[in-house]
Amino acid sequence: MIKAGIVGGTGYTGVELLRLLAAHPGVEVVAITSRAEAGRRVDELFPNLRGVYDLKFTVPDVAELGACDVVFFATPHNVAMNTVPELLRLGTRVIDLSADFRLRDAELWSQWYGEPHACPEVIEQAVYGLPEVYREQIATAQLVACAGCYPTSVQLGLLPLLQAGVADPTYLVANAASGVSGAGRQGKLDNILSEAADSFKAYAVAGHRHLPEIEQELTRAAGESVQLTFVPHLLPIIRGIHATLYTKVAKDVDVQQLFEDFYRDEPFVDVLPAGQLPQTRSVRGANVCRLAVARPQDRDVVVVMSVIDNLVKGASGQAIQALNIMFGQPETAGLANVALLP
Amino acid sequence: MIKAGIVGGTGYTGVELLRLLAAHPGVEVVAITSRAEAGRRVDELFPNLRGVYDLKFTVPDVAELGACDVVFFATPHNVAMNTVPELLRLGTRVIDLSADFRLRDAELWSQWYGEPHACPEVIEQAVYGLPEVYREQIATAQLVACAGCYPTSVQLGLLPLLQAGVADPTYLVANAASGVSGAGRQGKLDNILSEAADSFKAYAVAGHRHLPEIEQELTRAAGESVQLTFVPHLLPIIRGIHATLYTKVAKDVDVQQLFEDFYRDEPFVDVLPAGQLPQTRSVRGANVCRLAVARPQDRDVVVVMSVIDNLVKGASGQAIQALNIMFGQPETAGLANVALLP
Amino acid sequence: MIKAGIVGGTGYTGVELLRLLAAHPGVEVVAITSRAEAGRRVDELFPNLRGVYDLKFTVPDVAELGACDVVFFATPHNVAMNTVPELLRLGTRVIDLSADFRLRDAELWSQWYGEPHACPEVIEQAVYGLPEVYREQIATAQLVACAGCYPTSVQLGLLPLLQAGVADPTYLVANAASGVSGAGRQGKLDNILSEAADSFKAYAVAGHRHLPEIEQELTRAAGESVQLTFVPHLLPIIRGIHATLYTKVAKDVDVQQLFEDFYRDEPFVDVLPAGQLPQTRSVRGANVCRLAVARPQDRDVVVVMSVIDNLVKGASGQAIQALNIMFGQPETAGLANVALLP
Amino acid sequence: MIKAGIVGGTGYTGVELLRLLAAHPGVEVVAITSRAEAGRRVDELFPNLRGVYDLKFTVPDVAELGACDVVFFATPHNVAMNTVPELLRLGTRVIDLSADFRLRDAELWSQWYGEPHACPEVIEQAVYGLPEVYREQIATAQLVACAGCYPTSVQLGLLPLLQAGVADPTYLVANAASGVSGAGRQGKLDNILSEAADSFKAYAVAGHRHLPEIEQELTRAAGESVQLTFVPHLLPIIRGIHATLYTKVAKDVDVQQLFEDFYRDEPFVDVLPAGQLPQTRSVRGANVCRLAVARPQDRDVVVVMSVIDNLVKGASGQAIQALNIMFGQPETAGLANVALLP
Repeated sequence: MIKAGIVGGTGYTGVELLRLLAAHPGVEVVAITSRAEAGRRVDELFPNLRGVYDLKFTVPDVAELGACDVVFFATPHNVAMNTVPELLRLGTRVIDLSADFRLRDAELWSQWYGEPHACPEVIEQAVYGLPEVYREQIATAQLVACAGCYPTSVQLGLLPLLQAGVADPTYLVANAASGVSGAGRQGKLDNILSEAADSFKAYAVAGHRHLPEIEQELTRAAGESVQLTFVPHLLPIIRGIHATLYTKVAKDVDVQQLFEDFYRDEPFVDVLPAGQLPQTRSVRGANVCRLAVARPQDRDVVVVMSVIDNLVKGASGQAIQALNIMFGQPETAGLANVALLP
Repeated sequence: MIKAGIVGGTGYTGVELLRLLAAHPGVEVVAITSRAEAGRRVDELFPNLRGVYDLKFTVPDVAELGACDVVFFATPHNVAMNTVPELLRLGTRVIDLSADFRLRDAELWSQWYGEPHACPEVIEQAVYGLPEVYREQIATAQLVACAGCYPTSVQLGLLPLLQAGVADPTYLVANAASGVSGAGRQGKLDNILSEAADSFKAYAVAGHRHLPEIEQELTRAAGESVQLTFVPHLLPIIRGIHATLYTKVAKDVDVQQLFEDFYRDEPFVDVLPAGQLPQTRSVRGANVCRLAVARPQDRDVVVVMSVIDNLVKGASGQAIQALNIMFGQPETAGLANVALLP
Repeated sequence: MIKAGIVGGTGYTGVELLRLLAAHPGVEVVAITSRAEAGRRVDELFPNLRGVYDLKFTVPDVAELGACDVVFFATPHNVAMNTVPELLRLGTRVIDLSADFRLRDAELWSQWYGEPHACPEVIEQAVYGLPEVYREQIATAQLVACAGCYPTSVQLGLLPLLQAGVADPTYLVANAASGVSGAGRQGKLDNILSEAADSFKAYAVAGHRHLPEIEQELTRAAGESVQLTFVPHLLPIIRGIHATLYTKVAKDVDVQQLFEDFYRDEPFVDVLPAGQLPQTRSVRGANVCRLAVARPQDRDVVVVMSVIDNLVKGASGQAIQALNIMFGQPETAGLANVALLP
Repeated sequence: MIKAGIVGGTGYTGVELLRLLAAHPGVEVVAITSRAEAGRRVDELFPNLRGVYDLKFTVPDVAELGACDVVFFATPHNVAMNTVPELLRLGTRVIDLSADFRLRDAELWSQWYGEPHACPEVIEQAVYGLPEVYREQIATAQLVACAGCYPTSVQLGLLPLLQAGVADPTYLVANAASGVSGAGRQGKLDNILSEAADSFKAYAVAGHRHLPEIEQELTRAAGESVQLTFVPHLLPIIRGIHATLYTKVAKDVDVQQLFEDFYRDEPFVDVLPAGQLPQTRSVRGANVCRLAVARPQDRDVVVVMSVIDNLVKGASGQAIQALNIMFGQPETAGLANVALLP
C-alpha cells in the first residue's frame, strides 16, 4: 500500500481526494492536516465520508508527512512552496494541486501572485502535471505541479490544433466558465447562493492567474509564442468547467479526425462523435475531459468545446492519475467511477 | 414627501427598501447609512439601482436621522435598540425590521438573543408590525417592530384557525422552509452556492429565535397558551418562504370559507381557490402572502400552505406597508408591483 | 456472473442501475430495453456512460429477458404487471422498481392507480423490497417490489418509534420534499427549469399514491392502524428526498439511543450523532439513508429528519441491495461509492 | 387609453407583457388569446397576476384583434405571418415578438426556418424593433419586428465598435449564454430541471437562427459584410442573457469613452464604469442592457460583455418600448421597474 498524506484537507480538493482514494485499491491515506480543524473527525466536516474513513485532522508536521510515500498539497497557493523543499529532502514525493510550481519562471510567478516565490530553485524539479503531455516525466518525478482547472480544460482543447499547425497562435480565444466550487470552500460574499445563483457573469477579465500558465504551456506546444484572450465566467453550478475555444483555421484539415487520432489512447480524454456537444454534468464526479470540435458553416473558424469536473480532472482526479503514473499503478486505479447523471 | 432614512443599507432588506421605495410616490429616501461602506455610491454595491438613486452611504448620525420623518432599521438584531430611544425622543418615527422590539418580554429576549436588552422600557411602546392584526395600532405608533419573515408566514396561516377555535393549540406544527437570502448578505460558508445549492436540510431544530415570537402572537390570538413545533429548513433558492402548517381539527367548519372570509378585505393576503396550491415564485418580489388550506382525505387534520417573499412581505414590503398606514398613505403605495414569474 | 436485464432503460432509474452496476463485480447487464430507443446506443442517451457500456437498447422480448437471472423493471407503473407473470413462470427472478406490486390489496391498488390490477394473483408472491424490514424474505423471493422513494425515507424514520411504541399512531405527520428527478425523465411543463427552479411548493396534498403504501407498512410495524398526514413538496434540486416527521411522544425514552440501537447493524442506514442534522447532498449518489432524531425544547413532540437519494436508496440502489440479498452477494457489492459532496 | 391585444398569451413573453403593462398608465389590455386555454382565467395559469387582471383567454379572432389599437404577437415563428397582413389592412398596428419579419430576405428566412414565408410582400413594411437603431422608423411603423433576444444583446455590444471602425468585421466572435426561459414555456425534456440544472453546455453550434438576423443588422451597421461566429449556450438560470464578444482592434481608440458617448442618451442602455462587469441578475425583470468593455492586458483584442433579461429587453420590454415610441408615450412608460436583486 502506498501511504499518502494530504495537507490542507478541509477544502474541496481535500475531500475529493478522500472520496476518490476510498476506491483506490493501492493507496491508504494515513494523514490529513488542517491547522484550523486539528483534532476533529474528517467525517464531521464531510458527512458523505461517514463510515468510510476513521481519520482526524492533525496539525501539519513535517516528520509525519515525511513518513508518507507521497504527500498531496490541497492548499491555496503560497503554502506548498514553504514545505515542499523539506519533504523533497526527506525523499517524499509530492503532488501539489496548488499553483506554486506551475510557472517555470519565478519572476512571472511573483508578478501574478504578488509576492516572491519561496523556493525558486525547486521550480525546475517540478514536472507539470498534465499526463496527456508529460506522462513520461511524471513517472519519475519527485514533484508534480498539477495543472490548474481552467488550464486543463483549455489545453486539452487547443493542443491538437496547435501541434498540427491548424490554429493561428496569435489570436486564440478561450471563453471559459466554472462552477462555484472552483472558488474553494470558503465563505466569500460573492459566492453565497443569494449572490451567485440564477445569475451569470464574467470576472477577472483584466487578467486571471491561469492565463500565464496556459500561455506558457501552449507556447511550448506550438513552438512559438501564443496569444490567448482568456475570459473566465462564474456559473451558478457546483462543479464543472466548460471552455469554448475559438481559433481561425490556419490549415485545412479534418478536425474531427485530428482530435480522434490525437486522443485515441488517452484513458481520460473523450472525443465526442461529430455533432454531439459536451455538457458539464456528463463529467460530474468523473476524471474525464470530454471534447467536441466543430467548424460552423464551414467557415474558417474552429470551435472546440471542452468540459471537465474542476475538482476531478481539474484537480484531485488528475492528482491521483499522476500518482498512478508515479507509482506504477494502473493509470485508472481509483478513477473508474461513472459520472453522476442526472 | 415623507423623508425616510435607512440604517444598515448594505443588507438585502436595505436594497429591497430602495427598490420598492423607488416606485413610491410619497416617499423620498434622504439618507442611507453604513459604517463599512460610507462614502461609496449605493449603486456600486447594487447595480440594479444604477440610474435610479444618486445616494451614497453615510456614517450613521443621529442628527441626520432625526431630521427624517421616519427611519427604517434594516440591521441585524442588537443595533436598533441602541439608537431607537434617542430617535424617539427627537420625534422621529421608527420602523424596525430587526428582532429588537418584537418580543414583549425583555427577559425572554435576553434568553434567546444571549444578551441583555438595551432599552426594555421602550419595548411597550413598540407595536408589532403585522398589519393584518395591528393595523389600528400601527397607524398611531411611533415605533413599529416589523414581524419576522417566518413569523409572518406562520401567523397568517394559523390565525384564522386559532381565532375560530378550529385548531388544537396544544399541538401545532410549522414546517417552514426559507430561501438563502433569509440568512442575509454575508459571506458565510454554509450559504455559499457550493454548499447550499442542490441540497436541502433542516436547521435550528433545537430552537429558532422566531419560535418565541410566533408563540407570543399565536397565544394572544388564541386566548390561551399555544405549543408550536417549528422546524425551519434551508431551501436552495434566493427568495421565498413556504410554511406548511398542521393542526388537528378541533371544530368542524368549512375551512376554505373560513379563510376567504377572514382575509376578504386584506390587500396583501390572497386565499387561493380550493384545489390550488401556492408556490414561492408566485410572490417573488411582491408584497403578498398566498394561502391555501386543505383537509386531506377529509380526515381530522387541516394543512395550511403559506408563501411569502421573505424580503418583501417578510421584511421590507411589510415595513413600507406599515409606513403607509402610519402616514396615511394608500396602503398599497409603492407595493403594486407584480411578482416576477417565471 | 449474474446476468441482469433492465426493462425501461431510458428513465433515470435505468441509467442509475447502469451507473451502479458498472462497479458491481458480480453482475453483468446483458439486455436493456426501450421501445422508443431500440437500436440506439445507451451512451448516446447517457453520455456519462461513454466508455463504460457497449450496449444498445432493444425492443423488450420475453425470451431474451427470460434468459436473464434477474430482470429489473425500471418502468412507470402499469408496465411490470403485464410481463412479470410470464417471467416468473420462466423462472426468472424479478426486481420491480415500480409501484405495481407494492400494495398487498389489489382493490386499493385499483383505487389509487385508476385501473384494475393486471395480475392480482401474483401480488402475494411479491416481497416488499425494504431490506431493513424484509431481508429474510427477500433472500428467497422470486419477485421483489422495491419500496418507493418517499416510503423508504418515511418508514426508515418512523419504524423505530412505532415499533417501540413511542409514536402516537393516530396522528403522524410526514412533511417530505423531493428533487425533480423523482418525477422521471420526461418533458413535463411543471418540471422545466424555468418553472421549477428558484421556487418551492407542496403538491398532491389531497392524496399522493405513496400514502397507502406507507400506511400499509407502518400499520404492520405498529401492529395497529396508523393515520399519516403526508404532504410532498417539490424541491428545486435534482436528487434527494428530505422527510421531516412529527409525532407526539407516547412513551418517554431516549430516542437517540433508540435509533442507534435499532439501526446498529444496518449497512445503509446511518444515524447521525445527536445534534447533527442530515442534508440531502450528504447522500447524493450513495445508497444510504441518514437519520437524525430530536425532541425540541424537551417538549412532547419528536421530530425525525430522514434523507435519501431518491434514485439510489429510493430506487436503483435499493434494487441492487435486494439483488445482493437474493443472490448471496455481499450486501454492499456495487454500492460502496461515496456520496458526491460538494 | 391605448387598447392592446396579445396573441399567444400563454407563453413567457405573454405573461411578461401582462406583468409590465399592469404598470403602464396609458395602455389597457383588452384581449389575450390562446386556442388551448380559451375560456380559462389568465391568473389561473399565472398566479402572480391574481388580483391584477380579470382577463380570460379567448380564441384568436381577427375582428376582436382588429378593434385594438395595437396587437402584440407573443407567438412562436410561423404564426404572426399568417394573420398580420389582415390586421394591417384593418389599420391595426402590430408588434411582432417572433422571428417572422426580422429577416429582410424571404429566401434567407425560408432557408433558416424550413418553410416558405407566408407573406414576403409584407416584409419590407416591417421596421426592425431595436429602438437604439431604428427609433425614428419605429415611430411611424405599422409593423414592428422586435429584435430577438440574443441579437439584442450582441448588437448593442458590437454596434459602437463596428460603426467606429474599431472592430475587424471579418472575424467577430459572440459567445452567448441564455437562461432556460429563452426556450419558452413548454415541456421539453432538455429543459426539465433534472437535465438542465447544475450543468452547462453549448448548443446549435452548427448554426442558430439568430445568426442571420445578427449578421444582417451588423452588416448594415458596418457598411460591409461581417462574419460572426456565434455560439449559444444554455445557462441553468431562469432569465438572462450574457454575451461575451471578441474582436481584434482595427483602430486604436478609448473604447470606454466610445461606448459612453455612443449610449449617452439611451434610456435603456447602461455602460458600466471602467472595471465593473455586468451580471445577468442586475437586469432581472428590467428593460435594460448593461455593457462593459475591456481590452485585457492592453493587447489588441477588445472584449465586450453585454447582459439583458431575455424576456424584457430581449422581448416584452423591448416590445413595450416600441409601443411607447409608436404611440407617442414617454419611452420609459411601464418600464421603470427596478431589477430584482438578489
